Amino acid sequence: FYHEKVIDHYERPRNVGSFPKGSTDIGTGLVGAPACGDVMKLQIKVDDATGKITDVKFKTFGCGSAIASSSFMTERVRGMTLDQAGQIKNTEIAKELSLPPVKLHCSMLAEDAIKSAIKDYKTRR
Amino acid sequence: FYHEKVIDHYERPRNVGSFPKGSTDIGTGLVGAPACGDVMKLQIKVDDATGKITDVKFKTFGCGSAIASSSFMTERVRGMTLDQAGQIKNTEIAKELSLPPVKLHCSMLAEDAIKSAIKDYKTRR
Ligand code: FES
Repeated sequence: FYHEKVIDHYERPRNVGSFPKGSTDIGTGLVGAPACGDVMKLQIKVDDATGKITDVKFKTFGCGSAIASSSFMTERVRGMTLDQAGQIKNTEIAKELSLPPVKLHCSMLAEDAIKSAIKDYKTRR
Repeated sequence: FYHEKVIDHYERPRNVGSFPKGSTDIGTGLVGAPACGDVMKLQIKVDDATGKITDVKFKTFGCGSAIASSSFMTERVRGMTLDQAGQIKNTEIAKELSLPPVKLHCSMLAEDAIKSAIKDYKTRR
């Protein structure tokens, strides 16, 4: 049913955790999926000089597809500018991980979370 | 947000796995949650002489609440008769784990799965 990439990210999720509170170079996104009630927290650390994302962390209690989508997202956005990262669509992630249609909302959590983290970083600057 | 019992079952789920194929003393339930698209597989092993559940296994790719609900369910039904196990309501589990209302459908997966496994066992006998 699930692609081996999903299983891999589910069993060995990348960049799980959160950054210490109080840093100014961090943006935090906290979003929910109305379909299932799951919640995702994703944080970016940004190099103020270059405007690039230098590190990413996430935490969720969501399903295997949500874990895989956000783990994949954290690897994808590292090194990107905020503009580049803000343009990633959940459909790209879903395609890359071969998620079934019923699981599209889980990849949407990852897209919403990175957008929300970028917005938070910009607000705090 | 989540009760420590949920976190405990999520981080150390009990009775994960499945039984070898081809046994006649086993019943398998495979059910889905329309709300989120998650699927749960739960198997019971039954002592034909006493009609009691002697062992239980589950597997899911669902969220933390689904994992906790089914892990809790596996511990709860071991030693029960099929009739006793078939009467467990998802609301009991949700209450025991203090699941938020938006996560009730995850505990429903566990109730549906045990019912389905009991039905399968009876059919195969
Ligand atoms: S089912 Fe909730 S995020 Fe996947």
